[in-house]
Amino acid sequence: MPNSNKILQLMITAAQQSGEIIRNNFRQDTSSQNKTSHLDIVTQTDLDSQQEIHKLLVDGMTKLGFEPSEIGFIEEESSSDSLKKHNFIVDPIDGTTNFAAGIPFSSISIAYALEQDLKIGVILDPFSQTLYWGESGQGSYLQNQLLGKRELKLKPKPKTSWMVGAHLNGPDTVESQFKLYQKIFPQVRGLRNIGSVALDISMMADNVFDLILNQGCFMWDLAAARVILEEAGGQLYDYDGNQLQFNWHKSKKKYQLFACHPDIKNQVMEYL
Amino acid sequence: MPNSNKILQLMITAAQQSGEIIRNNFRQDTSSQNKTSHLDIVTQTDLDSQQEIHKLLVDGMTKLGFEPSEIGFIEEESSSDSLKKHNFIVDPIDGTTNFAAGIPFSSISIAYALEQDLKIGVILDPFSQTLYWGESGQGSYLQNQLLGKRELKLKPKPKTSWMVGAHLNGPDTVESQFKLYQKIFPQVRGLRNIGSVALDISMMADNVFDLILNQGCFMWDLAAARVILEEAGGQLYDYDGNQLQFNWHKSKKKYQLFACHPDIKNQVMEYL
Repeated sequence: MPNSNKILQLMITAAQQSGEIIRNNFRQDTSSQNKTSHLDIVTQTDLDSQQEIHKLLVDGMTKLGFEPSEIGFIEEESSSDSLKKHNFIVDPIDGTTNFAAGIPFSSISIAYALEQDLKIGVILDPFSQTLYWGESGQGSYLQNQLLGKRELKLKPKPKTSWMVGAHLNGPDTVESQFKLYQKIFPQVRGLRNIGSVALDISMMADNVFDLILNQGCFMWDLAAARVILEEAGGQLYDYDGNQLQFNWHKSKKKYQLFACHPDIKNQVMEYL
Repeated sequence: MPNSNKILQLMITAAQQSGEIIRNNFRQDTSSQNKTSHLDIVTQTDLDSQQEIHKLLVDGMTKLGFEPSEIGFIEEESSSDSLKKHNFIVDPIDGTTNFAAGIPFSSISIAYALEQDLKIGVILDPFSQTLYWGESGQGSYLQNQLLGKRELKLKPKPKTSWMVGAHLNGPDTVESQFKLYQKIFPQVRGLRNIGSVALDISMMADNVFDLILNQGCFMWDLAAARVILEEAGGQLYDYDGNQLQFNWHKSKKKYQLFACHPDIKNQVMEYL
């Protein structure tokens, strides 16, 4: 992987700059607009955060000697995704609805892929300033003033200790999601819907959540989290129990998935 | 109300000291034990936090000139509740399951009642260090480094903008809760289950949540939040739409309730 350490540093800097924008606009930005429905919104801060990240990554990569024509982006707040040799998959705010409502629980998600091979994932919680990153073959890490810096290793737990991160997606999947969650809830420790799947999966890599369920994720919600989780020993699966496959040529494709330690996969499959 | 300002200060100090205990033990305390079931746990930090609050309140009140024999407590982690002239209703960690799992979303809840008349509520989020307090007839306030200090006023919003705080309680209410949440979810902006009702209600006073639904709260979850919410213009209701009545002589009584601005109460009642 070319200059992986420098690309990682660049991604962290971009996430931190965007985090500052998000913190400065928290409870200030009243610009939210519906996208596909009242359940799916965008704010000016999403756009500002994305623009900042995009610019910092292009400038930084150019300074590192990469050709601008070889740098591609898949971004939530953009209609013109492009795939190149060096690709960044960016969600400028995962948890926009939380941000717009004033719930301080969201994240910035940036992944780097060489061709279509995911190499680096960076996720920042701009409020607690918890930084998660993973690098293919190099492990996953967390850094936070309160929690210190440490390598992440996911450990499987018994079902009655599971904390489940159960997202509620748009109107078309409501019935199947509620049915599934109602089956699982009484048998586990807790079920939370906190509103940022990228952060949920990062926290899973740190043994906070044991199972993540989501029926409407995009690639930009998952790409960075996937690197972090896989390097910590977890996996993303489709509902047939196969490793989740991204379609790099359909960035608007929605994924139905669960994430967990491979050792509990079969127990999860019994609910699906 | 006797020395209300000094009692408020004492409660804030107790919450802050307890907040330090909670922060210091976050991701360190592995002592969780089941209470009534695997869905209902307690940690050593709950007990330490309660002991600290209890001690600080008794010492402080005594220094303010109150007779120890006139100071009563209703506390989550205690079997010996007592009602006196000056009563404190304490939840040392509202959101123990989050705390034990490592989700930084919980609160310390302390209310003061003169006889059975709620006068002061203090709620602290020990992670973001957001402090909410309300005083009967004096309004409700928030203080936080990022959010500043300001008075809280709840404003009603249109239904498609509602953020709903929907708690999942123990096994006996699962079916009715899922049924209710499934009816509401597609019509509102979002539905979150974050895991601390005291914090949910405080955030409602700050216009983050618009509706809180809970079918298994205790008085110690609600007392402080009630003062803060009511002073901000919101209300707690039972499912018949009446103002929620506390039974001061049955501290272990569970309440089914919703909380919102009075102007949207009738819209909520249509779902119940």
